Amino acid sequence: MKKGNLFVYSGPSGVGKGTILDKIMEEDSNVYRSVSATTRSPRPGEINGVHYYFMTEEEFYDSVGKNEFLEYVKTYNTSYGTLKKDVEDKLSEGKDVFLEIDVKGALNLKSAGVKAVYIFVAPVDISILRERLIGRGTETLEKIEERLSISSWELSKAKEYDYLLINDELDKACDELKTIIKASRLLIRNFDLSKYKW
Amino acid sequence: MKKGNLFVYSGPSGVGKGTILDKIMEEDSNVYRSVSATTRSPRPGEINGVHYYFMTEEEFYDSVGKNEFLEYVKTYNTSYGTLKKDVEDKLSEGKDVFLEIDVKGALNLKSAGVKAVYIFVAPVDISILRERLIGRGTETLEKIEERLSISSWELSKAKEYDYLLINDELDKACDELKTIIKASRLLIRNFDLSKYKW
Repeated sequence: MKKGNLFVYSGPSGVGKGTILDKIMEEDSNVYRSVSATTRSPRPGEINGVHYYFMTEEEFYDSVGKNEFLEYVKTYNTSYGTLKKDVEDKLSEGKDVFLEIDVKGALNLKSAGVKAVYIFVAPVDISILRERLIGRGTETLEKIEERLSISSWELSKAKEYDYLLINDELDKACDELKTIIKASRLLIRNFDLSKYKW
Repeated sequence: MKKGNLFVYSGPSGVGKGTILDKIMEEDSNVYRSVSATTRSPRPGEINGVHYYFMTEEEFYDSVGKNEFLEYVKTYNTSYGTLKKDVEDKLSEGKDVFLEIDVKGALNLKSAGVKAVYIFVAPVDISILRERLIGRGTETLEKIEERLSISSWELSKAKEYDYLLINDELDKACDELKTIIKASRLLIRNFDLSKYKW
């Protein structure tokens, strides 16, 4: 069986990257969104193993010590990471595995030489993000401005990725992501060349 | 305007890579096949500037000296090369430019760090190539065996490319190439990021 592809998938808060991926996953059961581990507490409705793997600080850094993370980052006293096992098992099953991670984590993977398809989702205009975050109504204006200054830094790193999706129209962005996934299945590194009579 | 993509496109003699590209070009006028320069004489029906740029040995190596070639190779006393101007003009026009070149030339480009999408076309079984070359009836069996030993070496280099097209069914291979072309238009290196309000 052909191994699946690893996708590193980032974009600023409020850009709609989760919505695009949700739509893709509705149509394509071969796409798997990796479940991150985190040290933060579950929010109402969040289920362990579905939304996150919830870990104590001690469990988390025990796993770090055992080299069980593909990448991890600490922001605002909370740690987030991607467990190798979660990713590798799915890739061996031939799944296309998406790591929806922040830019810092993504660049860590890239500089560690992790072979993946790096996709960045961006808006046409950063002011769209402000409107969406205000529209959500879940954060203070101060917190939103803080997020936007991170977003601005993240957008400056977009050029480190392989592909750019401009989320201007949701359907167009979904089609574009589907095309990238389809093309990535033809990457030579995923073929078992020994099965051909060359 | 978005710059076009450069595609380096190779595969063993008789694999059908030209036929695939012909079909793509019939449907997509944005795809351009670069015209190679060569020192060999025109065969009946071959037109200068359409099939090849026919050059004398002296003209060819004069251009080499002026660094006007993106790549060139010499095989059996004949030189073939890709003129930079032919490629760069079309890329600036936003065309997707295909260099249908041999593996040696392709690997030269890759090691020179030329940013391109490298595509290799292969058969399921090398014996298919022998049948096709015999079927063409244009070469002696000795010449065919010589080609096949080159093909065998070329296939061993497939893994240096980005993408693999198995030309098992023509329509499938064409669809796959279309997908790669479409995805490549989303490569971040082709976007003019300055036009976004980030």
